Amino acid sequence: MSKKNKPKIFKPRPISGFLEWLPEVRLVELRWMDEIRDAFESYGFCSIETPSVEEVEVLVAKGGDADKEIYTLRRLAAEPGEEDKARLALHYDLTVPLARYVAQHAGDLVFPFKRYQMQRCWRGERPQDGRLREFMQCDIDVIDMDEVSMHFDAEIPAITLEMLHRLDVGPVCMHINNRKILQGFYEGLGIEDVVGAIRIADKMDKIGPDGVLKVMTEDLGLDKDVAQKCVDLANIKSFDLSFADQVRAFGVDNEMLEAGIEELMFVMLELEHLEKGSVMADLSIARGFDYYTGTVYEGKLVDYPDFPTICAGGRYDNLVGSYSNKKLPGVGISIGFSRIFSKLVKEGRIAIGAKCPTHILVACLPGTARSEVAETSRTLRNRGFKVEMYHEEKSLKAQMKYASRKGIPFVWFPQNSEQPKHEVKDMDTGEQVVADLETWLP
Amino acid sequence: MSKKNKPKIFKPRPISGFLEWLPEVRLVELRWMDEIRDAFESYGFCSIETPSVEEVEVLVAKGGDADKEIYTLRRLAAEPGEEDKARLALHYDLTVPLARYVAQHAGDLVFPFKRYQMQRCWRGERPQDGRLREFMQCDIDVIDMDEVSMHFDAEIPAITLEMLHRLDVGPVCMHINNRKILQGFYEGLGIEDVVGAIRIADKMDKIGPDGVLKVMTEDLGLDKDVAQKCVDLANIKSFDLSFADQVRAFGVDNEMLEAGIEELMFVMLELEHLEKGSVMADLSIARGFDYYTGTVYEGKLVDYPDFPTICAGGRYDNLVGSYSNKKLPGVGISIGFSRIFSKLVKEGRIAIGAKCPTHILVACLPGTARSEVAETSRTLRNRGFKVEMYHEEKSLKAQMKYASRKGIPFVWFPQNSEQPKHEVKDMDTGEQVVADLETWLP
Repeated sequence: MSKKNKPKIFKPRPISGFLEWLPEVRLVELRWMDEIRDAFESYGFCSIETPSVEEVEVLVAKGGDADKEIYTLRRLAAEPGEEDKARLALHYDLTVPLARYVAQHAGDLVFPFKRYQMQRCWRGERPQDGRLREFMQCDIDVIDMDEVSMHFDAEIPAITLEMLHRLDVGPVCMHINNRKILQGFYEGLGIEDVVGAIRIADKMDKIGPDGVLKVMTEDLGLDKDVAQKCVDLANIKSFDLSFADQVRAFGVDNEMLEAGIEELMFVMLELEHLEKGSVMADLSIARGFDYYTGTVYEGKLVDYPDFPTICAGGRYDNLVGSYSNKKLPGVGISIGFSRIFSKLVKEGRIAIGAKCPTHILVACLPGTARSEVAETSRTLRNRGFKVEMYHEEKSLKAQMKYASRKGIPFVWFPQNSEQPKHEVKDMDTGEQVVADLETWLP
Repeated sequence: MSKKNKPKIFKPRPISGFLEWLPEVRLVELRWMDEIRDAFESYGFCSIETPSVEEVEVLVAKGGDADKEIYTLRRLAAEPGEEDKARLALHYDLTVPLARYVAQHAGDLVFPFKRYQMQRCWRGERPQDGRLREFMQCDIDVIDMDEVSMHFDAEIPAITLEMLHRLDVGPVCMHINNRKILQGFYEGLGIEDVVGAIRIADKMDKIGPDGVLKVMTEDLGLDKDVAQKCVDLANIKSFDLSFADQVRAFGVDNEMLEAGIEELMFVMLELEHLEKGSVMADLSIARGFDYYTGTVYEGKLVDYPDFPTICAGGRYDNLVGSYSNKKLPGVGISIGFSRIFSKLVKEGRIAIGAKCPTHILVACLPGTARSEVAETSRTLRNRGFKVEMYHEEKSLKAQMKYASRKGIPFVWFPQNSEQPKHEVKDMDTGEQVVADLETWLP
């Protein structure tokens, strides 16, 4: 080993678009992930994980802009012929992997298949401000054979709201709409390019009502009063069922429109037991993706209107069209975990505490037998506490400083010849008291 | 959407070397991961995660065979110039990321820095039988400035053994040696290429004592009796401190050898409180990597001697040589989670149960008000149970079949006009009894 050449020194640096947290932030992130998992599991959803990669063919099949963002894998030591045909790429969301998973394992799954999935995804974007190239996504979906109960259209946002509530991010409002309302309304108005019109309506947030009016009339060639009606529809928002009368007041006669109104009313009614203000019928919600066919959702932080959508989803008629001839519709929501978490951390809105999970540091001072320190640590650990034993025989001051810097709430002093009973110090109050090893509680 | 062309159908297929589990296996995997995390945290170790990628430069700096196995990333839509210079690659272990992390964040960490890390790693190997290209690794390490307490050399395998014990994989034996013993012994025998000799000794498992003798004499040019002593040393194994006298009986006089014996005795003594048979001084353990400088470990399943090493590690003098001029020694163990788990699953040695985490399915039968079913579900959920509400109003038989296929242990029948009290059915025994919603316990 002494013969080893001195290696080149690389100054380590962060990689743009890839997050990395210090232990104290990671502790909060772990708590968040536990809460999310617990919320999902409390409704009986099972966890799945899929490989980080899919075949390139599978990933690009979905089409759209996603192609550009795909990171393909190549072996560094690839042989010449191998180089050209990257066959594997990192997944950029959890929807494509879910579809592939369900198609591949349909025979082994019990339907309705209720799964959650919390995994990293990657997008090979040129990094821009705030754009993550690696991020944790948390998805929850229900897939069923041929038909999915409409009750799940209500249960999915209820679970999501409960989960977000546990994260202490402040009040969240789930904005709900139904694609059938948009499609039926637009068709009823005689608009031919309904998908195009929905895509434009979806940009309301970005370009405002005037922008939508302009694009709809100029690019889509709609009459000004037709375009105005689309904008007016999008302005309908209600915490109760009153949206229905407002939509019907336009007098647009269309079967699909009526079906959409009924479905949205159904979902709003099922969610009536939730806290007022947490669910809104919001007819501006469109979701650009053309695979949504019914209910659509966007969740927003009420106290931070500028914050982008923190979760979104909806109902789709068929998940597995690209992989199977079966019809497997579903409904789900995707939570942009890393986007929310990193933004709140950077804005200082998340309380950061200890740098470790430790409850008790067992001090190791010269007067105390080491075996006593070790046995004390084991006893406390067996009682369910997270316990560090201080291993170096350093000064009391050094050990207290260690506990204080790491945010460990209690320091334990095992009994010794000069101190006949165990003592424990509360690092918050500074109080040190005699404590019984078998019964002490914080 | 109706205008969408019918997409091409891809038959989904597994990708060789990438694992994917059905929900019932994933449930066990999750339980394993919880136990591991809990064991690590019970000793106060903090979690970190690093990005899945590092700069290629950082990954290849370590040298050795690892280079060949690196998966580099390239954007599918990379522009011409971009294509040639892959800058990012997936990490192939958690040691390089830890070194980079510690070097990068040293100013923000409290030392001794005790961290665990459970993350996927990737190796771009041509897939062979059993070789995983994506796998979960669980690492636990202690890093300190300038010097790490020898007590950690004992604590790290103690934590690992406790963690493995929780996984119910049967008895595990941690085989412990010290590189100073090998180095000192070989030097004392006058062997010049000590590193070369250690590498050969490390192959004992694969090529046997005769093979080691042959290679040592033929390739390394050692005298036969010198080589024989190396083999004899490797045959020393003891559950107690008797190894020390056996080594000293060779009469090899070397300071480093004696230091190694003392260190190994220290570690064995510190682990005396553990169950007999779980820790062995095993002088055949060498660990090929040249960064180990003291204690080295290999954990093995006692009941399955043919099973490869399930965890391994040791003490290293300096973790961050490639990234910093600081001296940061450490000691750690790496657990090949996916390798152990997938092998045990495939060999049917892991008990697979339910397909979901649900405790109770609340049945939804025609005679019962839906609001009653929903309210019952919420109440049970608030009491801490994991509860699914059956949403489709299907027959009792269909609902029971669903519970049974998913392995849900209890089905709850909310009160209704014909059934004045709540009832619950134990799916195992088939017994159905009246139950109080607020107090029932399984």
